[in-house]
Formats: sequence, structure tokens, C-alpha cells
Amino acid sequence: MKVAIIGLGYIGLPLTFLLSSKKYDVIAIDKDMDKIKKLRKGVLPFARNEPLFKEYFARSLQNKNVVYTKYFEFIKETDIILVSVDTPIIGKKPNYKALDSAISQLAVNIKKKSIVVIESTLAPNTTKNFVIPTIEKLSRLKVNTDFYVAVVPERIRPGYIYKQLTSFPRVIGISSPKIKSVMRKIYKDITNGELDFVDLTTAETVKTVENTFRDVNIAFANEVAIACEEQGVNVWEVRKLINKSPFHNMLEPGAGVGGHCIPKDPWLLASSVKKHQMRLIETARSINDNMPAHVFALAEEALRKKKIKIANANLAILGYAYVGNSDDIRNSPTESLIKILKNKRVKYEVHDPVVKKYSKTTVEEILRGSNCLVLMVSHSAYKNLDLGRVSKLISTKIIIDGRNFFDKEKITKAGFLYKGVGNV
Amino acid sequence: MKVAIIGLGYIGLPLTFLLSSKKYDVIAIDKDMDKIKKLRKGVLPFARNEPLFKEYFARSLQNKNVVYTKYFEFIKETDIILVSVDTPIIGKKPNYKALDSAISQLAVNIKKKSIVVIESTLAPNTTKNFVIPTIEKLSRLKVNTDFYVAVVPERIRPGYIYKQLTSFPRVIGISSPKIKSVMRKIYKDITNGELDFVDLTTAETVKTVENTFRDVNIAFANEVAIACEEQGVNVWEVRKLINKSPFHNMLEPGAGVGGHCIPKDPWLLASSVKKHQMRLIETARSINDNMPAHVFALAEEALRKKKIKIANANLAILGYAYVGNSDDIRNSPTESLIKILKNKRVKYEVHDPVVKKYSKTTVEEILRGSNCLVLMVSHSAYKNLDLGRVSKLISTKIIIDGRNFFDKEKITKAGFLYKGVGNV
Repeated sequence: MKVAIIGLGYIGLPLTFLLSSKKYDVIAIDKDMDKIKKLRKGVLPFARNEPLFKEYFARSLQNKNVVYTKYFEFIKETDIILVSVDTPIIGKKPNYKALDSAISQLAVNIKKKSIVVIESTLAPNTTKNFVIPTIEKLSRLKVNTDFYVAVVPERIRPGYIYKQLTSFPRVIGISSPKIKSVMRKIYKDITNGELDFVDLTTAETVKTVENTFRDVNIAFANEVAIACEEQGVNVWEVRKLINKSPFHNMLEPGAGVGGHCIPKDPWLLASSVKKHQMRLIETARSINDNMPAHVFALAEEALRKKKIKIANANLAILGYAYVGNSDDIRNSPTESLIKILKNKRVKYEVHDPVVKKYSKTTVEEILRGSNCLVLMVSHSAYKNLDLGRVSKLISTKIIIDGRNFFDKEKITKAGFLYKGVGNV
Repeated sequence: MKVAIIGLGYIGLPLTFLLSSKKYDVIAIDKDMDKIKKLRKGVLPFARNEPLFKEYFARSLQNKNVVYTKYFEFIKETDIILVSVDTPIIGKKPNYKALDSAISQLAVNIKKKSIVVIESTLAPNTTKNFVIPTIEKLSRLKVNTDFYVAVVPERIRPGYIYKQLTSFPRVIGISSPKIKSVMRKIYKDITNGELDFVDLTTAETVKTVENTFRDVNIAFANEVAIACEEQGVNVWEVRKLINKSPFHNMLEPGAGVGGHCIPKDPWLLASSVKKHQMRLIETARSINDNMPAHVFALAEEALRKKKIKIANANLAILGYAYVGNSDDIRNSPTESLIKILKNKRVKYEVHDPVVKKYSKTTVEEILRGSNCLVLMVSHSAYKNLDLGRVSKLISTKIIIDGRNFFDKEKITKAGFLYKGVGNV
């Protein structure tokens, strides 16, 4: 069976290597010729520190069964076309430019009896109302007679791509029961997890609701954290005790929600509902988006206590990635914090041990002369921070902790003013 | 050790019997003389079908170690005073009338070195800012010198009182480490669950956040259900698939949230925060409160499809309790639905097999001539409904299912128009 994969990003590329290793012939398509050239030369274009990524790539190069190209004409030879293009949002609405382009180009090249598999995350009913009609119109073929469609939204997280890709259960939406057995065969080759077959829209809904569930529960934790600050209790102690009660799993509050999925998928879901406003989902988004501003408010308050005007402050910001130990900076909460600082003309410096742009400096350098350490990302590297050394470098002893990273008691004993999200 | 219990409701009375069975001498205080007289005569004043309630009462009567009274003067003899009065809300604000009365009367009778234990659910910081100052003022005693305070919020659900009371972990807020050992002794006699010692406000916070967690997660399920209705997918299938994904536990959507705790405790929590609006918590409350109106909208839509004007409709409503198989009607969603029907002058009849007021009629009687069956509560008794018989009695074959109680396929095959919350 010959497979095409359109869009060689965080989903498409790992899939390419995996299917290649399973002896599928793969046509790997991306519009970015730089990326194509790198791949042809055996160079990974991103996520070089992703576990197993290099190994799978090496195996795939040995197998010599992948063609990297920008030309959709190759689709004329393939039986399965996996679409894993980016589906971002602009404001609160989905932007299907890349999807539209991929679908339009595959439609004019599609072979009869092919199966188009959407791995990208879409707003519910997009496949039914947009993908299928577009293919039918441009190809002059009829769905479920001349071609078939499946929706199999990816379920992976940077840093765990191969672990999750090969073990997580998958929800498989199919346009017709006729393709159930072939879809089962392919995805059994990909994952050991359970496969559940549903209709197209259910598959789209499950994916967006799944990530929205996380977003709403993080927003709950953040709102409770803000309540705890006023009540003078420690949200982390509250959370620990709540989670001892059966059926309770309060998530972690923090300095903001980043990454490619959680801040976006709730808007894909909400945008698909016209008759009712998705009030809870929208409120959750707004609360999470506001957390970097809350971190700034904590810093402002601490500086005020130390009689330092914000105009004279210099913040040392630790961490730019959206999550600890990753170099993924998509929707970074630190980026939002920096926007606020720029707007208010507050001085700052940023360090991140993993993100290239911010790893050229050292923590020591950015702490020197700063009057406020703001920890935004729980990179393990920061565990080695020596409080004595920090005391000597920093000009005012303030620590703002966005990730419950430090031990408040220890920090306070060392003479610092400590303010953590949910623990002031 | 002699114990006083103030407030003999769903918490105080089970505790009275339990402590009596553990050989504590108990002074059981309630302002309601009717209740006191019943208890003295060996008659249970409520919840007669609660498992083990009768048995514990019988044992306590044999032990002859409980004094039922309305007089607070008995507190002069007791070492521990448990307060388990009702703390309802009026609108969105706590109403501490009963608490105020209990605290004021105990303050003028309290013995030196006593411990006042609050089992009632309070807004965070109420013990610190209201209970303690009130006792100090009226008793002229000093907290942590002349008397002590603990906050041990109850964690039980009607129908499971003794099971949960004797097995659940308890969070114990204490005003001073001096009372830790005596508090441990008492609560070890009550529960096999773990005991966690914290400060007073943390204990209040844990309780209110715990129930708010449930409320927000039910609101999420309800909002997703409404989205699924528009998307034409079944929320119950979506939920099942989401919960197969690790760390996801989407709760059940439904016709509304009732009972004594979940609709109230979020307002206790929100009312304690002045500097920030608890937007997510408030939105969740509003969504859940709106579900009976949503059930009505589903009924209206179904009737319209069957060309029946709402003015000519007659709804047969099944279930009045707030939860299946219970006679507890506090904050019943059916009550909210009835308010809407009355406002719109829609005819209806109600049946409930467990709630006295609505058990005098039969399901058959209320179905006869009705044009719409609305199931609000999943009482097991309704599992026996014979669809053939329903078809004969009902004048229009419509079923509105607020609890995913019926099998849509079966109902539809029997010729009914079926609309369920999240599954239309």
C-alpha cells in the first residue's frame, strides 16, 4: 500500500518515519522546499531533542521508501492520503488556508478509490461541510463511491511523540463502513492502543472536546489559585487535599497555557456552535490567557512592597518555552508577559536553557542587577539554582514563582520576598 | 468525653447516632421541638430510607447516652461542641442566620478549654473573621487560651451517609496544634479514612473548592451536550471516547444540578473573593441553573415538529427528587422546570415514585392524554416502563430524556420522537 502524507510538521513527519519503518512506501509532501531539501539530505528540520525522532529517521533513510517532494502529482499513485497540515486560529476563528490548499491540490490529483485521512484537528463538521464538498467539486468524484474519507485526529504532545503515537487509543471517524478494515489495518500498524470507529463529526468533536476539557480544568485551577491568594491559603495544599477525595482531579494552576493545541482547540469547538454561546469555554480561555498578566501583577505588588517603582525595575525572566524541558515556543506565556512589559516600558531580560534564542546568555548574567526573578517555565536546569549565588547577583530579593517550582519556606528563610501563583 | 452537637439535620443526626454508638455522651441540640420530641420517642424525623440510619438510631437508644434538647445550657458540661447547622444561600450570598444563632448561644454557655468544631460548610475565612470574634466577644474568652476552634467540613451524600461518614478521609482545620491529638482521637472514632491537619481557612477552602470542582465539570459536560445537539452527534458517545484518553474524566450532562451542596457551595466560595470576579465559577452556575430551561426548549421543539402548540400541550413529568432513587428534593431541577411551565401557562402533571407528594398518582395516570413524556430523574422504578403501554396512553409519541435514561434507538424504533440532552 502506498501512502501520501501532506504536511510534514509535528504530526506528519513522525508519521512519515513510522510508516516507513513499517515498510509502507511514503510520498511525503510539504510546500516548504527548505524542509524538503534538509530531509533529503538526512537532516531533521526541527525537534532534534525529541526522543526516538533521530532513530526513526535513520531507519527510514535506510529503508529508502520515502519520497520527499512538494509536488502533489505523486498522489496519483497513492491509495491513502494522510492530511496533517496546520489548522491555526486567527483571533477566535479557525484559519483553514493550509487545509484548503492541501485539499484543493489533492482533489485534482486523487486516484479513484483512495482514502483521504484527516489527522489535523478540525472544528466539528468541517470534514462534512468543507473537506468532502471541496474534493467532490474539484475532482468530480463522489464520496463513498469514488473516494472515501476518514477523520483520525492526532493525540500527541511534544516530548512524547513516539511514546504516545504508538500507544495511545485512536478514534477513527469513517465516511463508510467499507473502509473500516483497511483503516484498522493501517492504524494497528501505528498504535497498540484501542481503535474506536465512529462517524466523521464525532471524531472531530472528541478531539476538540478532549483538549477543551483540559483548558477548562486548568482555568478552574487558575481561578481557584487567584481565590487562594486573597484567602491567604496555599492552592497547592488545597489541590493535594481535594485530589485525595474520590473522583476529584484538580489540574495544576500556573503562569499561563501555551502550546499548539490547548489554547486553540477550544476556539475550533466554540466556532462550530452557532445557536448557543459557549460561555464556559470562552471564559476559560480568557482566564488562562490572562495568567501572564496576573504574574505581572504579582511582580508589581512585590516590587511595591520593596518600594521599587515599576519604571526602575528590571525583571529577570526564567523560561520562554511553553512547557518545561521543551524548546517548543508556540503560544508561549512568556511571550504574552513580554508584550505587557514592553507596553508598560518595563525593563527585562530572558533566559531559557533550551530555546536557542535565549540560551546564549546565562541565568547569572540576567540576574545581575535585576530586582525581581520571575520563573515562567519549570525547566529542570533551574533546579540547580544556588540561592546564595542568586542573593549576591540580584539587587532586590524578590522571587515570583509561576510554576510552584521553588520551596516557599526555603526561599523566605533565605530572605526573599516570595509570591507564587496561588501561594502569596 | 462529653460532646454537644448543634443542628440535627443530615449531618448532625447521623453524627449523634455514630458518636453515641462509640460510647460518647452526647447532648443533641436543635431549635425544632417537634424534632426533639420525635427523637425522644424513638422516631426518625427524616430520611427513613437512608441505609443503616435506623440501625444506628436503635443502637443509640439502647445506649441511653444521648440527651435531646433545645437548651444550650447543657453545653456548660461538654468538652467538644460540634456545629452542624444549615448554611444556605439567599441569591448568591451566604445566609448565616442559623450559624449566628448557634454560635451566639454556645458562646454564652461555653465551658473553658472547650473545642468548637464547625462541621457546616462555610465560605473561606468565615471561622476566622466571624465565628471566633463572635465567640470571643460574647464569652469574653480568648481563642487558643480559653477555648479552641476546629473546622472539619462534612463530606457526605444522601443515600451514602454512613458509608461515607465512616470511610472518607477528613480535612481537619485547627486553631492551634494543641488540639491536634484530641481531634485525631475523635475523628479516628468516626472514620477509617486518612486525617489531614491544616489551618482553619484551608479546611473551609478545600470543602467549597471540592464541590465547585464538580459543579464546573458538570457545567462543562452540559455545555458540550448543547454543542453536540447542534453538531448532530451523541454527547454520551463523545464522553465515553474522551474518558478512554488518559487523565480525562468528563462528568455526565443532564437536566440540571440539584441537592443541598453543589448548587450552593460555589457561591460560598465566590462570595469570599472580593478583588477578582470568579467568572468561571459564576458561568458554570448559570449554565447548570439553565438546564431545566434547556429541557423545556427540547420539549417545545419536539412539540413544534409534531405540530402541537405549546398552549395545547400537556407534559407528563417523571421525577421530582434531585437525584435518582432518593426522596431528597432540595434544589430540585424539576421544581425549576415547573416554574417555567407555570410562567408560560403550560399544562403538566408530575410523578415521582419516592417523593411522597408525587407518588399518590401513577405514571399511567399522568401519561393518559399527555403529549410529551419528560424524564427528569433516573429513578430505577422507571426502568419497568412498557413502551407499548406508553404508546397507548400518550396522545403524541414524544420522549424528552434529561438523563440518558432511555435507549434512543429502541425508543425511535417504537415510533417515538426522541430528544435527549446532548443527543437529539
